[in-house]
Amino acid sequence: MPDHRPAPPIIDFRSDNTGRAAPEIIAALAAANEGTAAGYGGDEWTALLQRRFSELFETAVRVFPVATGTAANALALAALSPPWGAVYCSEQAHVNTAEANATGFFSGGAKLTSVTGPHGKMAPEALAAALATAGVGQSHRSQPAAVTLTQASDLGAVYGLDEIRAITALARTHGIKAHMDGARFANALARLGCTPAELTWRAGIDVLSFGATKNGGLLCDAIIAFAPDAVPALAIQLRRAGQVWSKMRFAAAQLLAYVEDGLWLRNARQANDIAARIAAGLRDLPGVAPLAPIEANEVFLQLPASVLDGLEQDGVRFFRRPGDIARFVCRFDATPAEADALLVSLRRHLATSR
Amino acid sequence: MPDHRPAPPIIDFRSDNTGRAAPEIIAALAAANEGTAAGYGGDEWTALLQRRFSELFETAVRVFPVATGTAANALALAALSPPWGAVYCSEQAHVNTAEANATGFFSGGAKLTSVTGPHGKMAPEALAAALATAGVGQSHRSQPAAVTLTQASDLGAVYGLDEIRAITALARTHGIKAHMDGARFANALARLGCTPAELTWRAGIDVLSFGATKNGGLLCDAIIAFAPDAVPALAIQLRRAGQVWSKMRFAAAQLLAYVEDGLWLRNARQANDIAARIAAGLRDLPGVAPLAPIEANEVFLQLPASVLDGLEQDGVRFFRRPGDIARFVCRFDATPAEADALLVSLRRHLATSR
Amino acid sequence: MPDHRPAPPIIDFRSDNTGRAAPEIIAALAAANEGTAAGYGGDEWTALLQRRFSELFETAVRVFPVATGTAANALALAALSPPWGAVYCSEQAHVNTAEANATGFFSGGAKLTSVTGPHGKMAPEALAAALATAGVGQSHRSQPAAVTLTQASDLGAVYGLDEIRAITALARTHGIKAHMDGARFANALARLGCTPAELTWRAGIDVLSFGATKNGGLLCDAIIAFAPDAVPALAIQLRRAGQVWSKMRFAAAQLLAYVEDGLWLRNARQANDIAARIAAGLRDLPGVAPLAPIEANEVFLQLPASVLDGLEQDGVRFFRRPGDIARFVCRFDATPAEADALLVSLRRHLATSR
Amino acid sequence: MPDHRPAPPIIDFRSDNTGRAAPEIIAALAAANEGTAAGYGGDEWTALLQRRFSELFETAVRVFPVATGTAANALALAALSPPWGAVYCSEQAHVNTAEANATGFFSGGAKLTSVTGPHGKMAPEALAAALATAGVGQSHRSQPAAVTLTQASDLGAVYGLDEIRAITALARTHGIKAHMDGARFANALARLGCTPAELTWRAGIDVLSFGATKNGGLLCDAIIAFAPDAVPALAIQLRRAGQVWSKMRFAAAQLLAYVEDGLWLRNARQANDIAARIAAGLRDLPGVAPLAPIEANEVFLQLPASVLDGLEQDGVRFFRRPGDIARFVCRFDATPAEADALLVSLRRHLATSR
Repeated sequence: MPDHRPAPPIIDFRSDNTGRAAPEIIAALAAANEGTAAGYGGDEWTALLQRRFSELFETAVRVFPVATGTAANALALAALSPPWGAVYCSEQAHVNTAEANATGFFSGGAKLTSVTGPHGKMAPEALAAALATAGVGQSHRSQPAAVTLTQASDLGAVYGLDEIRAITALARTHGIKAHMDGARFANALARLGCTPAELTWRAGIDVLSFGATKNGGLLCDAIIAFAPDAVPALAIQLRRAGQVWSKMRFAAAQLLAYVEDGLWLRNARQANDIAARIAAGLRDLPGVAPLAPIEANEVFLQLPASVLDGLEQDGVRFFRRPGDIARFVCRFDATPAEADALLVSLRRHLATSR
Repeated sequence: MPDHRPAPPIIDFRSDNTGRAAPEIIAALAAANEGTAAGYGGDEWTALLQRRFSELFETAVRVFPVATGTAANALALAALSPPWGAVYCSEQAHVNTAEANATGFFSGGAKLTSVTGPHGKMAPEALAAALATAGVGQSHRSQPAAVTLTQASDLGAVYGLDEIRAITALARTHGIKAHMDGARFANALARLGCTPAELTWRAGIDVLSFGATKNGGLLCDAIIAFAPDAVPALAIQLRRAGQVWSKMRFAAAQLLAYVEDGLWLRNARQANDIAARIAAGLRDLPGVAPLAPIEANEVFLQLPASVLDGLEQDGVRFFRRPGDIARFVCRFDATPAEADALLVSLRRHLATSR
Repeated sequence: MPDHRPAPPIIDFRSDNTGRAAPEIIAALAAANEGTAAGYGGDEWTALLQRRFSELFETAVRVFPVATGTAANALALAALSPPWGAVYCSEQAHVNTAEANATGFFSGGAKLTSVTGPHGKMAPEALAAALATAGVGQSHRSQPAAVTLTQASDLGAVYGLDEIRAITALARTHGIKAHMDGARFANALARLGCTPAELTWRAGIDVLSFGATKNGGLLCDAIIAFAPDAVPALAIQLRRAGQVWSKMRFAAAQLLAYVEDGLWLRNARQANDIAARIAAGLRDLPGVAPLAPIEANEVFLQLPASVLDGLEQDGVRFFRRPGDIARFVCRFDATPAEADALLVSLRRHLATSR
Repeated sequence: MPDHRPAPPIIDFRSDNTGRAAPEIIAALAAANEGTAAGYGGDEWTALLQRRFSELFETAVRVFPVATGTAANALALAALSPPWGAVYCSEQAHVNTAEANATGFFSGGAKLTSVTGPHGKMAPEALAAALATAGVGQSHRSQPAAVTLTQASDLGAVYGLDEIRAITALARTHGIKAHMDGARFANALARLGCTPAELTWRAGIDVLSFGATKNGGLLCDAIIAFAPDAVPALAIQLRRAGQVWSKMRFAAAQLLAYVEDGLWLRNARQANDIAARIAAGLRDLPGVAPLAPIEANEVFLQLPASVLDGLEQDGVRFFRRPGDIARFVCRFDATPAEADALLVSLRRHLATSR
């Protein structure tokens, strides 16, 4: 094992995937490691997973554990779109900018079609306009097949229930499917204070990419199908995509532990609270405006390059994007001290830069 | 957590993936769960993994952890074959019979081309004949691109080093690549008593699917590239295949623990020993001949249906295939008592059936 | 234009695609070349094509002109099979041996699965056996999706109506689709003397690759869909496959001329007659047995290499396959003199070789 | 044959593919229809085609006849891009808006990435900006692979040689390939008055989609490879795409006739002249401004809906797009009378609409 001694103190806002896993999840693996169990999802844990998530979502769902969020998104969208489909997404959507067109690959050529909107979200009016000119029935055009919402958005904003319903209503009207990329589903849920059902199928969502990794998970996310007709294709596509673990009990055990006793929501609240603490601190810093409302666990700021350099020199870890944009992501195990250290460093370098 | 009480005693030969994970691997996850770490393989554990496996294989290798053996095989072969390639494999090869043509999918249409041979292996002469009539340069024929060997074979036999070298020599002569599906690589290694290097790149293998799951692993296998030119395509294809975990440290930690202090070989020997114990017992049972030499941890028998029924009634778990063929797979954590119980049951029902 | 002076006299059995186009078809192009016409099949000729072929096949059909037989086969099978499907075909089928796995490509990974049988045909019993062990519902296996018959077969035999019905009955029982590769459909039809309807949908065929090129056509074959549910996917897939001509009137005009006044059947009979003339001549040559009954316009012989050399020296053109197998294909515009010249040459070299 | 009596007089600006084929091309088919010829491009016409086009382009080229422009574009781009590639194109490019994502399909998931610019063209600065932020080497981003220019543009403008060179220079700097969609190559060539070589490889183009259909062709366009390393993949991909005619002589003969004695340039000039006549007439119509300079054979106008209705009532045929945009395309066989009729009708309805 590596001699892993991070230089204390950690001030790490690079991503929520740099954080630890919740110890409860590792404990669940140890607990599941007894006796023999049928392979490929034929085990008791996977059966329990179906029941437990069906309770959680207040409807019969089918849960497919997968290795990554990219797999969840691309395979979910491939199940909702024919090869000649158009999949509508926000311009900033992770599926559009950060998954190397996995959706195009798994679907056999479906086309991600970006739709504008504020704060990394898709505006219903923009989607309506895109659908109106899509050329339905014209064989030289990719045909509308699905819409995907990133919740929380890739700029850290959260779709309200009304926004989701407006979009899924359009989807229903045009006969296309609605997918939610819930890489930060728990963060959005914690923000909105609604139920998982309200945020998904009751709002018109057909299939959900259920993220766990970014919120204290270990090695497992999931596809959750509310639409039963998506299930058979998903089952076999996941297998040929190499996303069906033979020792599935250890994937199911992770997801069971993740939602046990509200662990997922506690984790999400912790991460959101750190972001809120930063947001509060930013209000005192004149001239610093986040690129989007801080509604989940991410903060995006455009700052002078010298300030960004200063933060880095102070040991603050974060990602820089073109245009002097900094992304700060709060882990479930981030501490108030990290937030405060960021604010202190920021305040100091902003003062200097003026 | 499910109330998991398997009826004692376990006599479970269904598969090696029904077994537990080695506790050392779960312990390694807990040990890696500290501090923050860069995502997507930029962490210390993944760096150490590269070094550790390069030592193990006595050459610089690139290790890509993946979720499943299907992912390892299909993505490795897709990296070795153009979309118009022919990939030669044994008729019984797992890639050919049990992966829902994932290879055809990931490669964009490469064609698995089966080659005959004994005991689930490919005969070098049969491969030579296939290559001789492949129609190289003819655009209406899939073009020879790669050969894949399943080690141990899907009937439980093990390719000897000479056999491997004969096949890779043909590959070299014809300008195609050589892949090994090492889902049971450790079992074969334990059988042959050679080094990992001898069994792979020194014998002409370009890329290895390195199985861990079936031999006490948890949720992670790997692709090991000996051929550097396969690396860039693999790196990006794995990402868009959704096979690159963001919290990669927990995948790397599994593989590091798997080979630490020879754990993998100990596990493989245990599994092989149980199979050998069964093989020895079978010698006393007149008229019972395994379908292939029992050289790793699998036993295949063709038996009267009444005998198979009898075994099942006695609580022996195993898979039945068409033609009254039974497959018995020995887990790393299988016990001599299980082997003996199988033999007792078998002896009894054979006596009755005559 | 090249100065094209083939050395007289022609004795050319290389393929039926080395022959001319029927002059009527070129005349039809000239006739269609007046005024303007809507693009992409919105023209009058294409509309007439639908009506004319619906009359010809005695049911409402949808005709999609395509550039080649490979396009017809691969796109038809891709419309009948999901990406995870198994497509059953004869071992010798053109789709399996001579289309560079276009079916695997267009379908996104469907697997051609070969089935044994006599004379390049699939035996119903062998198909039944393959379907019985296909592992329906098992996600690690390609799932039965379609069966394809090559009519006439790739060894020059013709499926009888009973054989076809036996195979499509199996397809229906197992819920899979039936496709016919009719690259030499007219030759088979001429042989059997039945109606186009009897040979296709009345015998259970869902989609037909309708060959014209090999039988005096110019640059156009067609997909004919009897199953209406295959039509929408075909329409858009053909467009994105680059198989929908913008000046479609000139494709439709070819197919209309091809069947006008029985031209296609006259052509096929001429080709078949030449093959029959060869078959009759072979009966006088002791020790020469065709590899399959000569029922259409192809003759396959296994002959001493010295005889094959001798034929070539005499200016007889044909294709040699591994194992000293010679293929002689009769063009619609082949002459009795060519057949006689082949027989004379053959007789002479056989005499010498003994 | 249909009774084809278009209501005289024709005023048809729907597309250049509604026009006739040049009679010379049909005559060439008749001339080629003699004797036998090797299949799949092994014939004398196809060999001559290679020589003739190599002369025409003043360098050794490889010409692959294909059925359609969509096939030419998608297969050319698939040969220039790996499955994980990004292909840069104008937002209005035909590949992006009118080919149902054939490029994404044939490439196995390459991503069309739109770049802004004036008049349906890509601005070099916009391409530079896109390349600068593409994330080269980051496996979660589609990797820059190729740029494609539509010449003439999809709004009827023509890239000047300087513009092309600026773009291909960027391509070279970034190690990506340059493709030209020359669906209206001859129209652009006629406009610019340069040589085919100057417009393509001398300006840095690697592969050209050579359009003939829209300019008096019949059923055949071509891919012209200037970059030899693109040839082998193209050769086999075209075969498995079903784009290699067995009777290739009849495709080659079309392309030979198309360029014989400057036919293609005469046709293009005729079409361009009609467009120029319309352009001249528009100058007298106050308030009517084309959406882009009229530099080839297309005219795009935004007009009051009532005017568009009026044109249609007068028997003027054209396509309407969302936003009251009208496209008028001039066929090679369009007449000055058609242009004048359009202008008369336009003038009348414009007067009324004010």
